[in-house]
Amino acid sequence: MGPSRIAIIAGSGRFPFHVAEAARRRGVSVVAVGLKGWVDASLAGQVDAYEELAVGELGQLIRALKRHAVSQAIMAGKVTKAVLLDQGTAFDPETLAILGRVKDFSVAALLGAVGERLAQEGITLLDSSTFLRDQLCPAGVLTARGPSPVEAEDIRVGLQVGRQLAALDVGQTVIVKRRVVVAVEALEGTDAAIQRAHALSGDGLVVVKTAAAAHDRRFDLPVIGPQTIATLTTSGVSCLAVEAGTTLLLDREQLLGAANAAGLCLIGVEPAA
Amino acid sequence: MGPSRIAIIAGSGRFPFHVAEAARRRGVSVVAVGLKGWVDASLAGQVDAYEELAVGELGQLIRALKRHAVSQAIMAGKVTKAVLLDQGTAFDPETLAILGRVKDFSVAALLGAVGERLAQEGITLLDSSTFLRDQLCPAGVLTARGPSPVEAEDIRVGLQVGRQLAALDVGQTVIVKRRVVVAVEALEGTDAAIQRAHALSGDGLVVVKTAAAAHDRRFDLPVIGPQTIATLTTSGVSCLAVEAGTTLLLDREQLLGAANAAGLCLIGVEPAA
Repeated sequence: MGPSRIAIIAGSGRFPFHVAEAARRRGVSVVAVGLKGWVDASLAGQVDAYEELAVGELGQLIRALKRHAVSQAIMAGKVTKAVLLDQGTAFDPETLAILGRVKDFSVAALLGAVGERLAQEGITLLDSSTFLRDQLCPAGVLTARGPSPVEAEDIRVGLQVGRQLAALDVGQTVIVKRRVVVAVEALEGTDAAIQRAHALSGDGLVVVKTAAAAHDRRFDLPVIGPQTIATLTTSGVSCLAVEAGTTLLLDREQLLGAANAAGLCLIGVEPAA
Repeated sequence: MGPSRIAIIAGSGRFPFHVAEAARRRGVSVVAVGLKGWVDASLAGQVDAYEELAVGELGQLIRALKRHAVSQAIMAGKVTKAVLLDQGTAFDPETLAILGRVKDFSVAALLGAVGERLAQEGITLLDSSTFLRDQLCPAGVLTARGPSPVEAEDIRVGLQVGRQLAALDVGQTVIVKRRVVVAVEALEGTDAAIQRAHALSGDGLVVVKTAAAAHDRRFDLPVIGPQTIATLTTSGVSCLAVEAGTTLLLDREQLLGAANAAGLCLIGVEPAA
């Protein structure tokens, strides 16, 4: 038994669309609150009710969720910490209260505090993979081709670095070539980090995406889809390793078809103990 | 009593020039072996003997050092791990033997192995700060202005991340703004990482440069000079924190003059225990 009505607090990318589709397929009514500047507004056409708010308007968000009478919400899609540094962002008193209260500006602390505030209003933040459990990446090689010995060694190096970075809340992606860490993602995003690595050291890159060891699936799940494969193959990436169980594979058949056509190796690695 | 004759194995930047000058000021004869593609060849005019070799010609390097009858050498100036990925680099058998033997491709492992190989030939690698001890950064605020409370908090965040990255041999530099890690250096170099951070989040950046906790001063000392300050000030950096005791301040008066003129805060932090 799941909820009969949910809200999606929607950032960028395809993730909110997939949550909406999967929820509605199960007969769940969906209200989407799109985050201005991040959401793809065509989400409006895929849900039962839609409105937009700016990031930093937590008071408005609470009022909107109550107005729509939802008691369960899912955060889906990307919003980066760049919003904290954007001079144009106006934080309302509810948001400022959270910024003043958190012990640090980690994603876990910030969104954990938002989750607590929503809970005070009777709104539960659900695991963002609630409707997409069958789309979580399994462990093992997913493509026709497994990692070469050189790629396997690069995955090992990338996981070691990536898990530290994820634990420090820096970024999710590390790009390695022949045991050399070529680029590390922070605020610039995955694609920019991969393109920098390609410019610095050419083809044959191994990309490792990790999540923090104690990952809270209420937010910030790494997501890969067919578009990810296109970006990787045009940027000289031969192998992608992601953490099993905390990474979503969207449009899996199309994704794996594209990966196999490009000779790319995709592998799900067991999360760190 | 120091050596009467040394060799400098010279990479890029001003560091080899400063070592050469300081050594000769003490009456030490200097042979420089410049690394092609990295060294500023005008070093030839500042030393007693000069030749150039490509990175990866360890056998040639050993023969050159023996021909010049030096038993003590200093590595100075930058060479990045990009050389390991450059298709154009031809590694001689001595170098390939080292690449095959090291347990990983960390700077410590690679250069430690080079140091051992040189030791077999009776050549000792000296601490690269041997002639520049008085130029090692002290602990404390060096500029007219100390860190603001916001900058002090960013230094704390940057040190935490930077020490992990240094221990993992990823890079030395972390750029923070209001507790958000904006950029992390890997193979692209310090200036590129700072410029990326500036493009992503504008002025008011705090740059933290760290060394690994167990730092071997035979190689890879972080170096800052007047040119560093110029790069920082044109890239929106308001504060630079470096580790005391393992960072060289070149041309200190000119450096601090430039920093003060720009209102920049420069601080030396005690290395991690």
